[in-house]
Amino acid sequence: MRVLGVDPGLTRCGVGVVEGVAGRPLTMIGVGVVRTPADADLGHRLVAVEQGIEQWLDEHRPEFVAVERVFSQQNVRTVMGTAQASAVAMLCAARRGIPVALHTPSEVKAAVTGSGRADKAQVGAMVTRLLRLSAPPKPADAADALALAICHIWRAPAQNRLQQAVALHTSKGRTA
Amino acid sequence: MRVLGVDPGLTRCGVGVVEGVAGRPLTMIGVGVVRTPADADLGHRLVAVEQGIEQWLDEHRPEFVAVERVFSQQNVRTVMGTAQASAVAMLCAARRGIPVALHTPSEVKAAVTGSGRADKAQVGAMVTRLLRLSAPPKPADAADALALAICHIWRAPAQNRLQQAVALHTSKGRTA
Repeated sequence: MRVLGVDPGLTRCGVGVVEGVAGRPLTMIGVGVVRTPADADLGHRLVAVEQGIEQWLDEHRPEFVAVERVFSQQNVRTVMGTAQASAVAMLCAARRGIPVALHTPSEVKAAVTGSGRADKAQVGAMVTRLLRLSAPPKPADAADALALAICHIWRAPAQNRLQQAVALHTSKGRTA
Repeated sequence: MRVLGVDPGLTRCGVGVVEGVAGRPLTMIGVGVVRTPADADLGHRLVAVEQGIEQWLDEHRPEFVAVERVFSQQNVRTVMGTAQASAVAMLCAARRGIPVALHTPSEVKAAVTGSGRADKAQVGAMVTRLLRLSAPPKPADAADALALAICHIWRAPAQNRLQQAVALHTSKGRTA
């Protein structure tokens, strides 16, 4: 499966495409950052994020888009911009019929480092190792986007099994 | 000037179009609510909001879009959805080159009722009077969208004068 990970932000929106399946070595297909000028007005910044995400979708044709889940408990100053950029990323994916999954920062950290409380350096180091890169992707937003994509590839089978189990349980309950 | 006011929300996004200039009677061109199903996934809800806003822009061709400014201090449960719906509204407008203005809830209340702390009923009553309607628009989100549009029409001249004064002051400073 090919997944586009998006670490949403207005100033820097990290994007990373990873291909692979759980239990096999993963491949980085691309990584980058969509930037928008801090002095532009909000509407134009959102248009720039949309154009950037569209370009990544056009170029890499991911089957899934994994976006960091934004919490309103985060830094009050940046959370609104993050929520708005994430809305644009979800909109772009859903408009094309690409399934969107949200993962929390601690789910992503736990997936790639084993600890939900890992720091940025640890996440960067593990992304570098798991994708067999020569150096950690910069800036951190780009590394986080790759970590999101990896997290999605690794969590997806578990989520699918859970959904299957729920479906099975429900159908059993109905026939009993 | 013709203004589309948007009271952003995922479950109910109020939309209202008002035409007029400050100091003259205003005319309501249209009012409604864009709804999205609470059980749909977030990506699809954002696509539905986009389609709804696009339809209002197509049909009424506003020259300005006024969106309620979302604060992260609001109700934690609903603020993220509100921020995301507002991002979609701003994106739709900016993509067409329509200027977007943000007004806070208290600016809107103060504009239409004279008090920034007015309640929903008071806002509804004044919207009804100012637009010479037979009854307050329902639901409250629709009335709020009309109040936003009215607020923008009335505040716009002051904002323009302020911008002109700043521009004049800046150019004087340069030539001095």
